[in-house]
Order: sequence, then structure tokens, then C-alpha cells
Amino acid sequence: MSPKAVELDFCLQPGWMNVACARVEHHLGELLTQNAGSCEVLNKAMAYSVLGGGKRLRALLVYATGLALGLPLKQLDASAASIELMHAYSLVHDDLPAMDNDSLRRGKPTTHVVYGEAMAILVGDALQSLAFQVLLHQTEVNPTTALVQAQLLCKASGAKGMVAGQALDCLNVGKALSLDELTHMHARKTGDMIAASVQMPVQIALQSELHHKLGAVLPCFDSYGQVLGVAYQLVDDVLDVESSTDALGKTAGKDALNNKPTVVSMMGLDNAKDWIVKLHRQAIAACEGMAPFEATGLVELANKIILRES
Amino acid sequence: MSPKAVELDFCLQPGWMNVACARVEHHLGELLTQNAGSCEVLNKAMAYSVLGGGKRLRALLVYATGLALGLPLKQLDASAASIELMHAYSLVHDDLPAMDNDSLRRGKPTTHVVYGEAMAILVGDALQSLAFQVLLHQTEVNPTTALVQAQLLCKASGAKGMVAGQALDCLNVGKALSLDELTHMHARKTGDMIAASVQMPVQIALQSELHHKLGAVLPCFDSYGQVLGVAYQLVDDVLDVESSTDALGKTAGKDALNNKPTVVSMMGLDNAKDWIVKLHRQAIAACEGMAPFEATGLVELANKIILRES
Repeated sequence: MSPKAVELDFCLQPGWMNVACARVEHHLGELLTQNAGSCEVLNKAMAYSVLGGGKRLRALLVYATGLALGLPLKQLDASAASIELMHAYSLVHDDLPAMDNDSLRRGKPTTHVVYGEAMAILVGDALQSLAFQVLLHQTEVNPTTALVQAQLLCKASGAKGMVAGQALDCLNVGKALSLDELTHMHARKTGDMIAASVQMPVQIALQSELHHKLGAVLPCFDSYGQVLGVAYQLVDDVLDVESSTDALGKTAGKDALNNKPTVVSMMGLDNAKDWIVKLHRQAIAACEGMAPFEATGLVELANKIILRES
Repeated sequence: MSPKAVELDFCLQPGWMNVACARVEHHLGELLTQNAGSCEVLNKAMAYSVLGGGKRLRALLVYATGLALGLPLKQLDASAASIELMHAYSLVHDDLPAMDNDSLRRGKPTTHVVYGEAMAILVGDALQSLAFQVLLHQTEVNPTTALVQAQLLCKASGAKGMVAGQALDCLNVGKALSLDELTHMHARKTGDMIAASVQMPVQIALQSELHHKLGAVLPCFDSYGQVLGVAYQLVDDVLDVESSTDALGKTAGKDALNNKPTVVSMMGLDNAKDWIVKLHRQAIAACEGMAPFEATGLVELANKIILRES
């Protein structure tokens, strides 16, 4: 089988998610080493915050989308690493005492617990910068693609995306929100970055000779990203009520404790679960709409993310 | 006189610095409005942190360098705004209680004093993202230039540049440093971003038809940026000892109070002042070496920055 065929079958192999996780982990380790600066503590704290944990769902979405589109794996590594770096920065900052004040993340003490608050702030700052750098210095895609991908990530992560969501989250503690306001907050806080994980490889395809094949299926990729973004936060809220700290690898029951509005507190557990089932159906339908592209990996990820129990 | 001639003479007009400051201020205001997200408090806090104050030295360096090279003003606006946004984010984070714990900046209460710590962290995060966005979405330069400029800013501001400097600064409080270690720390913390202010317009020129005229003078632009970077921090240290809180618009005497190593505490006030005089001479010599390019604005800025008294 040619290397290309191996790649195209990547998502059909059992255990492909583990292989993809190992791949992004390896790539992240290399990037952190190559881009280490002269402050050893900062370098260590960045590696601590990024490596050795996490479900890498965003990276998996990048790989599964790219492979569905027939893109070579090496073109996807930068996007996968970049979105994981951006996500890692957001976790380090969200966990700070002034924000969610969390001491446990991915089953380990949070960055500020180990390295102190000042260093944790700086780790987040440096990781955001590195996330852009990885996209801007890509050699496997053309400069225009790199530019468009960085624009995408900027929008998803900045004041119109993730940061706005986190800001609304901080401001809305203890407040009565409408369901629309709550879902808007979640879409910014989590959904935009999940949708970006799908959009980044789509952009590579759009800038390649594949673009003429994409017209009809583009809305399905968009819809898949949107649906997964909504579902991810919803499942998170349900798990925060139903799961244990051990199973989550982060503190359970935090939302109730912090008096944070959640969809569960607003519509009740049963309705939230019904909504999850509906979103799962929509995600699978979006994958089916991607034909003739084979979205096996995206189906598996929809199952993994939406039907997850921790 | 044609608009082009007006532009080329820009730095010869008395008061050009005020005009350039007003220009970047206006541009920053527009960018903040255009890129405002759905969290009103975040938008306000971002505007509070960016607008209505600051010497805009980095923006002035961008304009003076670009005009020395004969570039049109409109090609420089994005670079000037971007570097000011990046600088503003670093100030907001540096002022946080976990970092320098400063309550006064540019003569106003710092962002975390007005909006709280959580919002100040998020403001910095969103401003960093916006700084990249402004460069990535430029329409007055070609995509390759935008990409190279964003790479430059990434390097100057990240774990190999500004963030490393700030991290070393946090870690070195109360420690005995060599002069080399101290100047390395300053070069990362302040120098790299000042040098980037000069490099960004140089990159625009390098990607244009001007590039064949630049070979011989490029080292002078580089040297000017480096020298100014060193001088800026040195003058800052001297002023921290000699000036008053009122004159600085930020708390004076903080370094001694925080037991921070400074060049002044290490080599004494007189030696530090001698070094400043030497750096000033080097900066002026670099400007003279830029001929036939007319570096009037850069000479004025060297005078303003290195000979400043507040």
C-alpha cells in the first residue's frame, strides 16, 4: 500500500485516535523545544501546561477532518498543534485564582499551583504567541493558506470568540440568563474553537486543487463543527453534575459551587440529555452529507465527544 | 504639493509626532470598534487599556522608519497599531497583582483596579489576539509581507522575546545578576519589541521595489533598533530613581521598593548616565549611516527617547 493510501485509511484503522494523539504530542514536544527561549522556568512551565495529558479532541478534529478531505497528515500537524497550544493557554488562564480558581486539571495540579500565578499568566501569554507562530511558520502549506488559518484562529480565540465567552462567563456568575444568552456564551467560550478545528483543514483544502469538489459539502463540515461545539459544552455541563472528580481529572460539581448558570440548571437534566441526543443525530447526519468524502473519523469523534462519560 | 510629497516631508514638519500619535490613536479606536465582540465590559476594558494615553513611542518608531524609507503612511498604520496593541497587552498583564502589582499607569488607575483581575487577564489575552489580527488582515501590503510581519511580532513578543524578559524579571527579584544577565533580561523584556517597531516597516520595504536600495543601509536600521531598545530600559531605570510619580504617570521608585536588580543599582547612576550618552551617539551615527534615506524622524525620536526626562 502506498504511503498516501495508508494515510487515507488512517481513520479506518482501529486505534487511529491514539496514533493521532501520539503524533500531536510528539509534534508539540518538538515545537516547545525548538521555540524555547532563555528563561528555563518559563520553558518548563510551558511544557508542563501543554504536554502529557488532555484528550486532544481539537487535534483529533483537525486530523479527522483533514483526512476526510484526503489531505496528507504532514499538512495537518501545524493546525493540530496550534489549536492545542491555543486551548492550553486558555486552560492555564481560566484556572487562575482570579478566574475559575481551579487547582486540578487533566489529573495534575494546575500551572499556577506548581509555578505560581505570575508564571502561569506568562505561560498563557507565551502559548498564545506560539500558537500563532506555529501556523505562521508552516512549510507544508502555501503562505496564503497559513495567513487564512491564522486569521481563522485569531477570530475564534479573541474578543469575538473564546475570550468574549470567558469574559461573559466571569460576569454572569449568579445571574439569571435566558437560554439564548447562555448558549451564546457557550458558543463563544468553547464552540468557536471547536468549529475552528474543523475549519482549519477545510481552508487547506479550499486553497488546493480540491476546492472545486468542496462546494456542495462545505455546509456539512460547517454544520458538523457548529453542532459539536454546542454539544461539547452541553455534555460538559451534564458531566459536571453527574460525574466524579476522579473520572473527570478536574474538580466536579464546580458549576453549582460557583453559582454558574448552566443549561442543566436552566432546562433540567432530562431536557439537556434529550438535546444531546438530538445534536448527536445532527452531527451524524452532517457526516453522511459529506459523501463522497469518507468521514469515518468524524463519525467516531462525534460518538466519542457527544456520548462521552468523563 | 502632491499627497506623496506631503507624506515624505511628514517628519520634517514641526509637530509631526503629535500628528502621528493622533493618527495611531484614531486607528486604534476604529480597530477596537470594528473588532468589538459581544461582551460589552470586555470591549470597554480593552478600550480603557489602549486609548487615551501613552507616549506611543513604538508607533512613532514605525512611522519614522517607514517614512525614512519613503513608504506611504497608510502602509504603516497596521504595523503601528499592532505594536501598540501588543505593548498595551503586556502592560495590562505586567501591572497585575501577581506580577508588578501596580495601580497607576499612564496617569490612570490600572485595568485590574478598574475592571478587576479576571477582566484584566482577559483584556490582555484579547489585545494580543487583536495585535495579530490587525497585521493578518492588512490590505495595504501583500500577504507575504503581512505574514513576515506577524512572524516578526510573534518572535519579539513571545517566549523568545518579551514574555521571556518578563518571566526573568519576575524570577530575578532580589537576586544578584551579572551585567550580562541583566542586559539580556532587558533586551528581551523591552528591547525586542522596540527593535521590532523598526523591523516591521523595514520588512515592508524589503518586500517592495525598494529592496535593491536597502542592502547597504539595513545594518544601520538594525543597529538603530537595537541601540534604542537598550537605551530605553536604561533611561527607564535612571528615571525610576530620579523622577517623581507625577512626572512619570506611574509609580516611581518601584524597582528599589521591589528589590529589583537594575543597571543603576549595579553600576551606579553616573556610569549608567555615561552609557546613555554613548548609546545616544550610536543611535545618531546609525541614522547618519542610513543616507541617502532621510532619517530626520528617527534622529528626533532618538533624542526624545534617550534624552527624555519623564
